[in-house]
Amino acid sequence: MDLKNFFNPSGVAVVGASSDKTKVGRQVLDSIIKNGYTGKIYPINRDNKMVAGLPACASLEMIPLKNKTTILVVIVIPAPFVLAELEKCARLGMKNIIVISAGFKETGDEGAAREADLKALALKHKLNILGPNCLGFINNNKKLNASFADSGTGGGQIAFLSQSGAIGSAVLDWLRNKDFNLGYFISLGNKAALDENDFLTYLATDKKTSAIFMYLEDIKDGQKFMSLVSKISPKKPIVVLKSGMSERGGQMAKSHTGAMAGGAAAIKAGLERAGAIMIENLEELFDLMLIFQARGAFGPVTGDLRILTNAGGIAVLSADEISRQKLNLKDSLDILGDASALKYEEALDKILKTSGNDNILVLLTPQTTTEPLLTAQSIIKVDKKYSKRLVLASFLGEVAVAKAKDFLTDNNVPAFNYPERAIRAVKRLADRQSVLKTLKPFLKKEFPSGKAKSDYLYLFNLLNKYKFPAVKTLKYSSSVSVSYPAVLKAVGPDFLHKTDKGAIMLNLENRQAVDKAAVNFSKNNKKILSNPDNYLVVQPQVKGGLEIILGFKRDASFGPLILVGIGGIYAEIFKEFRTVIADLNTARALEFIKSLPFYPILTGARGGKKYNIKQLADILVALSRLANEHPEIKEFDINPLFLRVEGALAGDVRAII
Amino acid sequence: MDLKNFFNPSGVAVVGASSDKTKVGRQVLDSIIKNGYTGKIYPINRDNKMVAGLPACASLEMIPLKNKTTILVVIVIPAPFVLAELEKCARLGMKNIIVISAGFKETGDEGAAREADLKALALKHKLNILGPNCLGFINNNKKLNASFADSGTGGGQIAFLSQSGAIGSAVLDWLRNKDFNLGYFISLGNKAALDENDFLTYLATDKKTSAIFMYLEDIKDGQKFMSLVSKISPKKPIVVLKSGMSERGGQMAKSHTGAMAGGAAAIKAGLERAGAIMIENLEELFDLMLIFQARGAFGPVTGDLRILTNAGGIAVLSADEISRQKLNLKDSLDILGDASALKYEEALDKILKTSGNDNILVLLTPQTTTEPLLTAQSIIKVDKKYSKRLVLASFLGEVAVAKAKDFLTDNNVPAFNYPERAIRAVKRLADRQSVLKTLKPFLKKEFPSGKAKSDYLYLFNLLNKYKFPAVKTLKYSSSVSVSYPAVLKAVGPDFLHKTDKGAIMLNLENRQAVDKAAVNFSKNNKKILSNPDNYLVVQPQVKGGLEIILGFKRDASFGPLILVGIGGIYAEIFKEFRTVIADLNTARALEFIKSLPFYPILTGARGGKKYNIKQLADILVALSRLANEHPEIKEFDINPLFLRVEGALAGDVRAII
Repeated sequence: MDLKNFFNPSGVAVVGASSDKTKVGRQVLDSIIKNGYTGKIYPINRDNKMVAGLPACASLEMIPLKNKTTILVVIVIPAPFVLAELEKCARLGMKNIIVISAGFKETGDEGAAREADLKALALKHKLNILGPNCLGFINNNKKLNASFADSGTGGGQIAFLSQSGAIGSAVLDWLRNKDFNLGYFISLGNKAALDENDFLTYLATDKKTSAIFMYLEDIKDGQKFMSLVSKISPKKPIVVLKSGMSERGGQMAKSHTGAMAGGAAAIKAGLERAGAIMIENLEELFDLMLIFQARGAFGPVTGDLRILTNAGGIAVLSADEISRQKLNLKDSLDILGDASALKYEEALDKILKTSGNDNILVLLTPQTTTEPLLTAQSIIKVDKKYSKRLVLASFLGEVAVAKAKDFLTDNNVPAFNYPERAIRAVKRLADRQSVLKTLKPFLKKEFPSGKAKSDYLYLFNLLNKYKFPAVKTLKYSSSVSVSYPAVLKAVGPDFLHKTDKGAIMLNLENRQAVDKAAVNFSKNNKKILSNPDNYLVVQPQVKGGLEIILGFKRDASFGPLILVGIGGIYAEIFKEFRTVIADLNTARALEFIKSLPFYPILTGARGGKKYNIKQLADILVALSRLANEHPEIKEFDINPLFLRVEGALAGDVRAII
Repeated sequence: MDLKNFFNPSGVAVVGASSDKTKVGRQVLDSIIKNGYTGKIYPINRDNKMVAGLPACASLEMIPLKNKTTILVVIVIPAPFVLAELEKCARLGMKNIIVISAGFKETGDEGAAREADLKALALKHKLNILGPNCLGFINNNKKLNASFADSGTGGGQIAFLSQSGAIGSAVLDWLRNKDFNLGYFISLGNKAALDENDFLTYLATDKKTSAIFMYLEDIKDGQKFMSLVSKISPKKPIVVLKSGMSERGGQMAKSHTGAMAGGAAAIKAGLERAGAIMIENLEELFDLMLIFQARGAFGPVTGDLRILTNAGGIAVLSADEISRQKLNLKDSLDILGDASALKYEEALDKILKTSGNDNILVLLTPQTTTEPLLTAQSIIKVDKKYSKRLVLASFLGEVAVAKAKDFLTDNNVPAFNYPERAIRAVKRLADRQSVLKTLKPFLKKEFPSGKAKSDYLYLFNLLNKYKFPAVKTLKYSSSVSVSYPAVLKAVGPDFLHKTDKGAIMLNLENRQAVDKAAVNFSKNNKKILSNPDNYLVVQPQVKGGLEIILGFKRDASFGPLILVGIGGIYAEIFKEFRTVIADLNTARALEFIKSLPFYPILTGARGGKKYNIKQLADILVALSRLANEHPEIKEFDINPLFLRVEGALAGDVRAII
């Protein structure tokens, strides 16, 4: 779908435009008028001839235009009347619609049914519907505020999509105070039809938009999202604040939005894969908005920082934070407490001239002879010569530096209240930069469902097919040949938790021991083993090595997800599984292995064994393929995978089909 | 020393009070006058009869009082003239002095020599000198601003000590904007005489002070500091922002202040031991000041939180942060976007009535019908009934909620710009609360220097004396009796790095093997072994178990510090040694063990072995004693200590005397 008309309509009709100024319908109309929209405005009102000083139409049909298709319709009437209005739009060929009205999915079963109908209508008539239950949108570059949120006028290069109207309003209120304008503000509402992916597609090619911020409560189609974001983010940074990433928060989000898709681990892995900047809170959102808004375009952001300061203490505190953020402080220049504006100017010029692509953080504390505003002007003067560099400022204090800070921010040098905020923002940008180095577009792979079974020997065959190294595993018979010591295992649907039922018999040193164990076990489990799906297998017993757990799981939104964890006694410490989207190639697999908490062990730290990291990468790539080519497998676990100097071996495998 | 007179003088003399309004001496005088000090004010000026409308004295002697001892002297003259003035003070019995003048330690050798003289004078004449190189102090409760920093008037319950004048000014400027007043502001300067410990002693008994904040660049006498803080902090929370905690920051701090005392690990351990709230940056400083200033006294702070909100999204983001901070979200009540002030009032009252000691976070986002200021008033109305509870607010946005936020903060409910800031502050307070549970005052122990040697067998004897379990270690001779397999080690000053020189011979299975190894080694190392300090020892070889490294180190400021780390291949991952002040009793040792990153291994997580944690605690207590009772030992390492199910054993020991 093309949203060009949606955001740039020839006119706007407001269904529900009221003469009562306290009504939302009227507030939307007022926003449109107030922000100076230059297209035609059509209040739709059954009873009044004039609304807000404009001639009103009794209904959409009455709009005095033959071709109504380029008109945006904003619907602000009680929910029970919305569907009829949508059908009218469809009849009139009006495809671009905002449904601001609440009373849908968020209100219970009746609302949910209504929303399902709305969705069906949108699909049937190819309607571009934003909402329902949203604030509307603002396209400041067209002076079009089709929402009941307050916004300044004038364009901007940042687009902000918010799945929460309340957070959207709060952000707009904050920005108003900073005299900032967004290019686009889009209140996503219930996302019954248009969702973040549709808007990403549009914003990707919108020339005025240079950065995209999103507050999301769910991500409906994670694979499409990854595909879009991974394509857009190298050119336009995409910043995502996703709520509900903790277990408790996730539960709350579910009951709040009915959001079902995408577990926290999958979302995190998905955003990483796509090259998005994932942030944790609103403060970070503003810090990054401050940088992108004030600074506009800037070159690649390194992890190297230089400090210019008139006070030692605050530089030391900044150095501490730089270290905490694992950034690199290249140099800190203290021009002392009596530094004049001129001294700042000369020092900054010298630093910028000689510091390659390093980021610069200019600190100032108001002391007896400090000239905050003059210093701000000096900084701007120098900065203009180096506009592709990232220069940030933090002027400490409030009253004494307020004007100076505003002047800096208004003139392209974002000024932070606290140096630590600037430093953390640099960290996010530098991390993005290093992700971009190896970023490739995500391509959704669709394979037909296969016929994998959960049978133990079948799964070992599958491992063989995908060239996984695995322990030689044979069905037990009194004539089977195996090397010693051997392991005898009972496998099958009744032995899913093998250790519980004594179904793993270890340290069998010779033929007799194996046979004896098999006879005893069979005697004690006659009934269970009478089901031919349950049977005994023998394996050579693997000694030593590091035990790893790896597998995959399918996320409803993001698709298959690989999980890796450590086994054995250290599992309790490295509790968390690291996850990664299952489209690994060798390069990405190696990057992923480097991020594992136990990576130093693999490299033979402190004189330990060195493991074959390349082989582990191959295994992860093979697991990726298996996960994609067998969509019928819901979960798959290799536990343990023995990592040994002489090579890895899968010791046990389990699948849920 | 008693600082009562220092902070509450009968009059103030300003040496260097100038008619030139741009001079610092004049600015100090103006501050004293402006803030409404009610005692006598004596400008000291050789040339003018009147300064700033007050009669001036030509010198301190000329002050028309017989007894000048209760007068505070503020010295603001060039550094070379300061010492003569101090001698004059001593002669006149004026013991309370602020030296604002710079030009001491911070300026190089000449200044350092001058500072040493100042110190000597202070000591000789028992002068209470604040500074030099400081802003002065403010005692707002006496309307005395004896500094050249700007400050509002009116008292406060927070004392703030700052070792950086620049950070001090910035903090005051921030507070002015909030209409906050500190009770005390003390600019510590170079701390040549009075330091943080002296002011802590005074503030401990000052009735108006309920919380103490400090920005410190060094801690001169860490043991005294711990002793004071551990006594004061249960009654008056002590918040410390210590700069230079990272390696790089530490280096910068050193060159900035000449601060030498207290390594970062020692300071961290020391502040933990003392029950201080250790924070990382200025933002946290303000957050906690906001709470203590607005809230005054409140009861014990639990880690349990309840949320009241009019928007789901922001509550979910808050839940995520609560989870990140490892706090506990008990409940979140969403009274929806159209919640009126009355609805907030009723809901908050119900929550406070039924939620024990849980902390309450009230969230508000400005939506169409939201009444921010009325809601703030409703919150205050309810809150007054529950003044011992911790109620915090975060109203999102800027313009729409500014008045409401001010109203909240002015009426004892601290209002934060972002919920995450409130949540992190609660985390600090809850952590302090749980530290207080087991906090005992730190007592500095002084033992005379002993006669410990670094000889290997001597050290094993020392271990035995302190009842450390250790591997039986005997000097090798061809008749010595040992169990097999055995280890043969060459020890002594030339074998400090045993593995390098092949000086550890493992897996000796019998008598012959031991003797053969001894003969071979002796043959190859004849010359070294001719020094009787180098010799061979035999030990039974220890099998299995978990290898731990533990020891102690002496910090110049904080005294002996115990270090514990993991050995073997996992050492590279658990790189950091955990440290703790060496005054452990069993309870504290057990707490410390629980904080070790590998603690889950010790408890037998995932069916692993269970180690004897009580024994490990005993070992740490014994190591504590050893560290205190042998001040001549600079460093001491047991590496490894084998932890085994059947009991621990020290395998090797090393000491630097």
